[in-house]
Amino acid sequence: MRVLILGGDGYLGWPTAMRFSERGHDVSVVDNFSRRRWHQAQGTDSLTPIRSIDERLAAWRELSGREITPYIGAIEDAEFLGQVVVETRPEAIVHYGEQASAPYSMASREQAVETQYTNVIGTLNLLFALRDHAPDCHLVKLGTMGEYGTPSIDIEEGFIEIEHKGRKDTLPFPKMPGSLYHLSKVHDSHNIHFACRIWGLRSTDLNQGVVYGISTEETDRDERFCTRFDYDQTFGTVLNRFCVQAVIGHPLTVYGAGGQTRGFLNIRDTLQCVELAVENPAEQGEYRVFNQFTEQFSVSELAELVKQAGEHLGYEVTIDQVENPRVEAEQHYYNAAHTKLLDLGLEPSHLGEELVESMIHAIERYKRRVIASAIDPSIRWNPQPAPQSAA
Amino acid sequence: MRVLILGGDGYLGWPTAMRFSERGHDVSVVDNFSRRRWHQAQGTDSLTPIRSIDERLAAWRELSGREITPYIGAIEDAEFLGQVVVETRPEAIVHYGEQASAPYSMASREQAVETQYTNVIGTLNLLFALRDHAPDCHLVKLGTMGEYGTPSIDIEEGFIEIEHKGRKDTLPFPKMPGSLYHLSKVHDSHNIHFACRIWGLRSTDLNQGVVYGISTEETDRDERFCTRFDYDQTFGTVLNRFCVQAVIGHPLTVYGAGGQTRGFLNIRDTLQCVELAVENPAEQGEYRVFNQFTEQFSVSELAELVKQAGEHLGYEVTIDQVENPRVEAEQHYYNAAHTKLLDLGLEPSHLGEELVESMIHAIERYKRRVIASAIDPSIRWNPQPAPQSAA
Repeated sequence: MRVLILGGDGYLGWPTAMRFSERGHDVSVVDNFSRRRWHQAQGTDSLTPIRSIDERLAAWRELSGREITPYIGAIEDAEFLGQVVVETRPEAIVHYGEQASAPYSMASREQAVETQYTNVIGTLNLLFALRDHAPDCHLVKLGTMGEYGTPSIDIEEGFIEIEHKGRKDTLPFPKMPGSLYHLSKVHDSHNIHFACRIWGLRSTDLNQGVVYGISTEETDRDERFCTRFDYDQTFGTVLNRFCVQAVIGHPLTVYGAGGQTRGFLNIRDTLQCVELAVENPAEQGEYRVFNQFTEQFSVSELAELVKQAGEHLGYEVTIDQVENPRVEAEQHYYNAAHTKLLDLGLEPSHLGEELVESMIHAIERYKRRVIASAIDPSIRWNPQPAPQSAA
Repeated sequence: MRVLILGGDGYLGWPTAMRFSERGHDVSVVDNFSRRRWHQAQGTDSLTPIRSIDERLAAWRELSGREITPYIGAIEDAEFLGQVVVETRPEAIVHYGEQASAPYSMASREQAVETQYTNVIGTLNLLFALRDHAPDCHLVKLGTMGEYGTPSIDIEEGFIEIEHKGRKDTLPFPKMPGSLYHLSKVHDSHNIHFACRIWGLRSTDLNQGVVYGISTEETDRDERFCTRFDYDQTFGTVLNRFCVQAVIGHPLTVYGAGGQTRGFLNIRDTLQCVELAVENPAEQGEYRVFNQFTEQFSVSELAELVKQAGEHLGYEVTIDQVENPRVEAEQHYYNAAHTKLLDLGLEPSHLGEELVESMIHAIERYKRRVIASAIDPSIRWNPQPAPQSAA
């Protein structure tokens, strides 16, 4: 199958590219290296030393005998993107090509606008490129569980049947996202749904949980294949950050009460899920949503788990409750459906001490590269003193 | 009260500016004349000959003795907008400053991107300007009933209580809008809701129906005060367009089966509603939604009404069902709540033959200005042959 991966230089995009290539698909990747640039601008870096895209692709050619074709440019550039779609004639597109950090989007007006512009306009360009050049192509779009927020009812997979005043309809699940980044994904979801309804495109929206982990089958084959691993306040996700904190002897920083509960999954399961979505495409005109995570944890539970695993390995691990830089519920109901990918055959990895220990071992190799000052949160959701009656 | 009106040169913005000024408020307007430019670019024009903003304001000063202060620029320009908010220190902002045409947004990728950029980024800039410079200001934002689409359940005002698997929550009403323009308003709604939740801003989102009519108390006082009146396929709304068609002897063009049902209101009621919202502001931190329309009609019902009124005035009026350029349900359930503005004291005008006759008389004055070729729909929602199983 001809598979085009947007954001193919990223944490998930690069391992996904190798995986599809390994399976014999004809893979092209698009990237404009914005994540690398954003890190440079803030003086941070991936924990793992990552190679240039050219080195990665050359090493992949050398070891696998397979070609991955790179296209360097931004999806906000509609002409570039249109040409890529025309040239690669994709049967499936896996779209990771967005600004994916909530704190980044909350740091300033400029970064908020950059996030919504990059994500919403980039994806809108993609929908037009598909309509005009590849209407049969299956768009596999990475969304986020954060689109739903934390409602007091069970979260369903994209749609909910509502009974109201004696009538019924199945409608998009209401969204109450927690950052301007998460909002950009909500906007994308509405735009993609429309393109499927009106233009007959086909799409799977993967509302992904928080990803953890550092290794996949392919990244483990050669050091040159390792993927990025972010642990800083902007781009790091919570479990990855806790593991780095354990290794460098920094208290694990739990934001607020720690009852914040989310869906999580191993990076290896991300690859499984994306493969399952591509292998079982949506129908023409169908917009379907899968909740892509395997287990729910609260932030406090994760901190405890990392503390335990770290102590088994001889680290002294403490947990600090720091003032929450975000505005979010710190104790709430959370129960989200996630059966559709299991029905397609997903075999979930489970998070336990063993996995955390293996992450810690992987991190130890690069311990000297940790920039400790980049971890503590300084980006606040609400820079002003909160108005008294703010709801 | 200090009131800032975004889009103060427009169909609704200009009459709103005069109304608030007349009531003794301290009014400023922002506009970048994009509607005038879009008309120029497509070779069309308002039916009514509208004066320049300078002429309007000078005439207003002359007749009312009151000043309205103009700021010429785009809300997409954050620096400009921030300065306006700092200078005018608004207590209420009425935000009409968006690209408001569904066909315009569906004509090309460029226009789709322009629409979502102008509306979403402009409003995002506004939210940051309020957060940083006027956190107590009440934002009265014009949304649209089109955000909801045509669900099979009753439409509520912004939020709906959902009972699901034994639990309950009140959540944003699910959105299934019908064009990329309507989607931009959905994106705005989500962003504004977030700014109220996180930053404690206060906002009223007026999900307005389709507006008809040509005259308000103030526009009637002097010819120089008349507001624009669009009847072309891009910017014209259905009832205004039918009345123009009746006058020039063009069949009334019903798109498809004509069962499309929407909420409608008289331009005079728009002014009433906006006044009521401003006089009864949302609480700090509150995001509230009012459905702003007074009556529901199907397109066929409106065509029949215009036919009757026209015939009473001696016109020969025929109705043509033309192929629907849009992708939309042409027969559907529709029942939308609209009690919140009534509760605040709205006294609705009702649409009847008399009102249509008065519109027809107003149109007759400018009959020679009608560009008949601009009326028939050529902008199609789906320029490609629809895929077979498109849902």
